[in-house]
Amino acid sequence: MHNSIYHALEKKDCGHQLSLDNAIAGLTFNEDGLIPAIAQQHDTGEILMMAWMNPASIRETLQTGRVCYWSRSRQTYWRKGESSGNQQTLVGLFADCDGDALLVKVNQQGPACHTGRRDCFYNQLTPDGLNITKAPIQNPDEMYKK
Amino acid sequence: MHNSIYHALEKKDCGHQLSLDNAIAGLTFNEDGLIPAIAQQHDTGEILMMAWMNPASIRETLQTGRVCYWSRSRQTYWRKGESSGNQQTLVGLFADCDGDALLVKVNQQGPACHTGRRDCFYNQLTPDGLNITKAPIQNPDEMYKK
Repeated sequence: MHNSIYHALEKKDCGHQLSLDNAIAGLTFNEDGLIPAIAQQHDTGEILMMAWMNPASIRETLQTGRVCYWSRSRQTYWRKGESSGNQQTLVGLFADCDGDALLVKVNQQGPACHTGRRDCFYNQLTPDGLNITKAPIQNPDEMYKK
Repeated sequence: MHNSIYHALEKKDCGHQLSLDNAIAGLTFNEDGLIPAIAQQHDTGEILMMAWMNPASIRETLQTGRVCYWSRSRQTYWRKGESSGNQQTLVGLFADCDGDALLVKVNQQGPACHTGRRDCFYNQLTPDGLNITKAPIQNPDEMYKK
């Protein structure tokens, strides 16, 4: 179960470096070749959304500075903001200790959620049930019209 | 691909409610019966870790107020802090728009990461390679000794 490349990094000091090829090769991708990526607004700390990346979308994100996911529903690369205009600019990309999750610190223009809400995590679960806690900041019908 | 329960919630107003049974039944679990759960320190906004939950660990977390994950490596329930003492107390649990990811706002005592670092996302990826950006705040050998 242990990922050998990331396992070896656990005991390394702050400042230790590894090539990007080895860092990406060492990540754990699921059976669909994907790794979960958490998008966080870099300054406010808001968790905006969770999506998925593959090796090519990680490289593109680092090279272009615009965040690129893999869309499982559309089975294609998904450059956030392509259709809505609400772009995500990369601030920093981080892999976790096990190399099986990514944190993408971003600068998000407008809503990150396709519902027009700023972020996707608006359904609060409590012992008494689910409560919707946020309202759209943009009309989703206007986000996706041409 | 659309999840019908969460899809129906997208257009609902702030304050709309649903029973906990329906909210959990509507979540999308993967082929192992798990859903990804992002743990965030409630006040600082730090992303501490990403782990996995199943329906029973979601219910236990809500009932006890102590965060309970499913450990894929140990194939058992994982009540954060059981062996390290570094507990996670629940502040708020949220499902995303598609019902396929959870955000757990917590109060984390000490390090969340088994390496002794405060959080797990210490491996920064850049076009030039991976850099370790954080040092342990506690000696991991002391976290797990009895």
